[in-house]
Amino acid sequence: MGQPMARNLVLAGFDVRTWNRSGGSVEGATASRTIEEAVRPAEIVVTMLSEDAALRAVTFGDGKLLASLRTGRIHVGMSTISVALASELATVHTKGGQRFVNAPVFGRPDAAAARKLWIVPGGSGADLAELAPLFAALGQGTFPMPGPAQSALAKLCGNFMIAATLESVGEALALGEKGGIAPEQLLGMLTGTLFGAPVVQRYGGMIARQEFSPAGFAMALGLKDMRLVLQAGDGLEVPLPLADLLRTRFLQAMAQGKGDLDWSGVTTLIRESAGLK
Amino acid sequence: MGQPMARNLVLAGFDVRTWNRSGGSVEGATASRTIEEAVRPAEIVVTMLSEDAALRAVTFGDGKLLASLRTGRIHVGMSTISVALASELATVHTKGGQRFVNAPVFGRPDAAAARKLWIVPGGSGADLAELAPLFAALGQGTFPMPGPAQSALAKLCGNFMIAATLESVGEALALGEKGGIAPEQLLGMLTGTLFGAPVVQRYGGMIARQEFSPAGFAMALGLKDMRLVLQAGDGLEVPLPLADLLRTRFLQAMAQGKGDLDWSGVTTLIRESAGLK
Amino acid sequence: MGQPMARNLVLAGFDVRTWNRSGGSVEGATASRTIEEAVRPAEIVVTMLSEDAALRAVTFGDGKLLASLRTGRIHVGMSTISVALASELATVHTKGGQRFVNAPVFGRPDAAAARKLWIVPGGSGADLAELAPLFAALGQGTFPMPGPAQSALAKLCGNFMIAATLESVGEALALGEKGGIAPEQLLGMLTGTLFGAPVVQRYGGMIARQEFSPAGFAMALGLKDMRLVLQAGDGLEVPLPLADLLRTRFLQAMAQGKGDLDWSGVTTLIRESAGLK
Amino acid sequence: MGQPMARNLVLAGFDVRTWNRSGGSVEGATASRTIEEAVRPAEIVVTMLSEDAALRAVTFGDGKLLASLRTGRIHVGMSTISVALASELATVHTKGGQRFVNAPVFGRPDAAAARKLWIVPGGSGADLAELAPLFAALGQGTFPMPGPAQSALAKLCGNFMIAATLESVGEALALGEKGGIAPEQLLGMLTGTLFGAPVVQRYGGMIARQEFSPAGFAMALGLKDMRLVLQAGDGLEVPLPLADLLRTRFLQAMAQGKGDLDWSGVTTLIRESAGLK
Repeated sequence: MGQPMARNLVLAGFDVRTWNRSGGSVEGATASRTIEEAVRPAEIVVTMLSEDAALRAVTFGDGKLLASLRTGRIHVGMSTISVALASELATVHTKGGQRFVNAPVFGRPDAAAARKLWIVPGGSGADLAELAPLFAALGQGTFPMPGPAQSALAKLCGNFMIAATLESVGEALALGEKGGIAPEQLLGMLTGTLFGAPVVQRYGGMIARQEFSPAGFAMALGLKDMRLVLQAGDGLEVPLPLADLLRTRFLQAMAQGKGDLDWSGVTTLIRESAGLK
Repeated sequence: MGQPMARNLVLAGFDVRTWNRSGGSVEGATASRTIEEAVRPAEIVVTMLSEDAALRAVTFGDGKLLASLRTGRIHVGMSTISVALASELATVHTKGGQRFVNAPVFGRPDAAAARKLWIVPGGSGADLAELAPLFAALGQGTFPMPGPAQSALAKLCGNFMIAATLESVGEALALGEKGGIAPEQLLGMLTGTLFGAPVVQRYGGMIARQEFSPAGFAMALGLKDMRLVLQAGDGLEVPLPLADLLRTRFLQAMAQGKGDLDWSGVTTLIRESAGLK
Repeated sequence: MGQPMARNLVLAGFDVRTWNRSGGSVEGATASRTIEEAVRPAEIVVTMLSEDAALRAVTFGDGKLLASLRTGRIHVGMSTISVALASELATVHTKGGQRFVNAPVFGRPDAAAARKLWIVPGGSGADLAELAPLFAALGQGTFPMPGPAQSALAKLCGNFMIAATLESVGEALALGEKGGIAPEQLLGMLTGTLFGAPVVQRYGGMIARQEFSPAGFAMALGLKDMRLVLQAGDGLEVPLPLADLLRTRFLQAMAQGKGDLDWSGVTTLIRESAGLK
Repeated sequence: MGQPMARNLVLAGFDVRTWNRSGGSVEGATASRTIEEAVRPAEIVVTMLSEDAALRAVTFGDGKLLASLRTGRIHVGMSTISVALASELATVHTKGGQRFVNAPVFGRPDAAAARKLWIVPGGSGADLAELAPLFAALGQGTFPMPGPAQSALAKLCGNFMIAATLESVGEALALGEKGGIAPEQLLGMLTGTLFGAPVVQRYGGMIARQEFSPAGFAMALGLKDMRLVLQAGDGLEVPLPLADLLRTRFLQAMAQGKGDLDWSGVTTLIRESAGLK
């Protein structure tokens, strides 16, 4: 994910220093040997990692991002993380005289390459204004949220909505199939009438064709995100029975050895529960 | 619902005879005093009723539709009904030397008036071809299904998907609201990115604004349709945990005196469960 | 079930006429060739059937029980049936000048043979008093309910509680097993402390040992009873999410070909969902 | 909880040093001003705290239990804690040359006072043997588990089973009540037949009488325990839909301001969902 984003920043004229675990490089950017080396001279540091633990390690742990970032500079966290971590990062950076903007994105690597990401930033108005050129270089639009915690939460809500779509389409197509309607036909009716959203078309197609490899978004990440949604609901005291159902589906998928499938493969559990195949 | 449909048939040049419980009339159509009177001379009989019981009464009971329809003529059932009744109607009409096409629709009265219904017909290919002009006069497109039972099932799947959308949007907006995001702002992000389907926009707006009166689609009909979805799942042996959750939500709404709200008002239960308001 | 009950009635000195589908006989009782022949001379008619449809057939259909029962005589329905049918039977028998007492039982054939049934009768006080000797000949105790509908409902509540026990014990033992506790050991702790009820001991043992054949109570009957519980909840407007979960479990068991197992075998779904075995 | 336990240890002839947050004393025992002072001379240290965080603070944090406990001595943790913390405590004590036995209990303060606790210890066989006199002074029986993690898990399974009982009894009594059966009458039938376990009798009575104050076991502790059950299930990859339902019920109770009620008061949500009261 980071590579196409860095490439777009280079193309937009930014002076880019990169660092990543596997050491890959981006043409036009300077590869750093350590995070510290990348962060120390930077005006803006962008992080894009798979989960809380990785961002914690980079920021507080061995990565020393927090210790290396100069006063007044901005850390733009673009990972999908917990509401709690987004709040904590805002607090510690403020305490350190630095600035933190949380800015997770919707879109997979192909969208990143095409500058088609949707960005959901949360931070001060001034910081967002300052970051506008950066966001313009990376995506097709921004949906600002009141603050870093809200930005993390909004992104989780989006992933929850996608997972809910997997479940509803999965149940509908399994019901239709046992009732004599080919999945593609039922899906065509759904997307042709009221459910024409891209997410229904893309994931619905994968479910209808039972094509879950290679994984565009890993099953384990689906489980992680549903955990984060429920964690947020727990902290805010919002009962979320549909999120319960979804988390438990992903957990079952992992327990039954389906961890290699795309997260939309969670719908195979629905078909199996109905005795299909 | 029937009135704007009848009007469009008149406008398209059909010779229309109407009958309804409350006795309203349509300009250019002949109002019948009894169902029998409307059915006996007809080439095509269209029924549009609120539920199984009403269609049964009209067809088998006092309405005498089945007894009055001439040999070879077509009964087009456009109500949202159970899979079981759609099958039964196909069987009895065939036995009676008549034809039955099940053809439920997506769209409310305003869509019916604007000839914007989506029609999901199930019947023989020849019958559907014969009905093409009628469907063209009523809607903006058809999605044919293999047969009457499948057509009833496909329509129920669509209503299930709408109800699932109510739940997922309702949970997301309640979570966001308690976390400090205004509902309209979160909804704007969702519809502006991956969830731009009409159903998310329309119902999401009602949920964000908490506007559930007057009811466009009654809570009791939502409960009825979720019952029919589960009944179909029971008959076909397809476990549908999300449909369970939805049916029970509507049942709770009825039990708590929310029967006057639009079915999207079922989401008030989510907010209340979170202590909102 | 009927055979040991008839035997106990003979032993208690009742003059017994029997009828059953397969034509088996009971020593000391007179076997009838038709239901009518058994019912016509009777003071008290006891029915013990597997479900609503069977009792309907016997009472209203070919069985002609309703038509054959003399004025003032009592029909004691001991099957597990729907609340709606219990009410209907009370109404039609009253209209026919007859009496109806609904009296379902807890206990399997071995309990019936040992006069260890628990009886849950619902009817008028006078009718229950008149039936006391009959109930004493069949069971170890009665728990009178206000009327036939309540008696049917109470029995369904009991079966719901058993199914809930299957789920809770099944989840607990699966969790323990994956965590390194042998099922029998965890069960021993549960029954040895707070959960010493017979139902936990008996079914818990079956679950711990994974012994589900031969079926003491068929999977399909478990599904049927959960349906009746939800039907009652639907009619009375009581949301029952745990009953939803249970019904859907049994439905899945049927869909996946587990219909031959005892209903406690529904817990194999829990183990499989956890990747056990 | 700690006070009656300390008293019983004194009565059994143990030389007891106590410490607790509020500084209460026990006749015959020596009150310590600090945890360190209580721990340093001890052969056996017993901790009984409300949750993970408190036990962590006492052991690793300001309490300095870990640092104060002498080589070879035993820490007996009797709190209801997470599986993860039980494992961690075993590891760190072993590394410190000390011994750790996890030994949570079933029973409230009145049971503790009456030496009627049930103890579920997990540790080495030798350690359990050495602790036998201590356990005998505190409870009426022990159910040894393979190790500390299993002991924590078994205790959580027990609390899960109690919460499941609250839900099943709550749904059954609400259904019965709307159907015309007084809650006490239906409960009497249930406990008189198959569900005679103490937990059904005690909690069932509270539910039937709607008596939830004062809280014997706090709502927040119910929520905490269901979280720990699900955390264990998440770690061990065991889908637990019933535990999902239960956790979400307690969360809703907290969100709706029912935190002061006994955890069995969670059943008021069931009644309210049915429009009762």
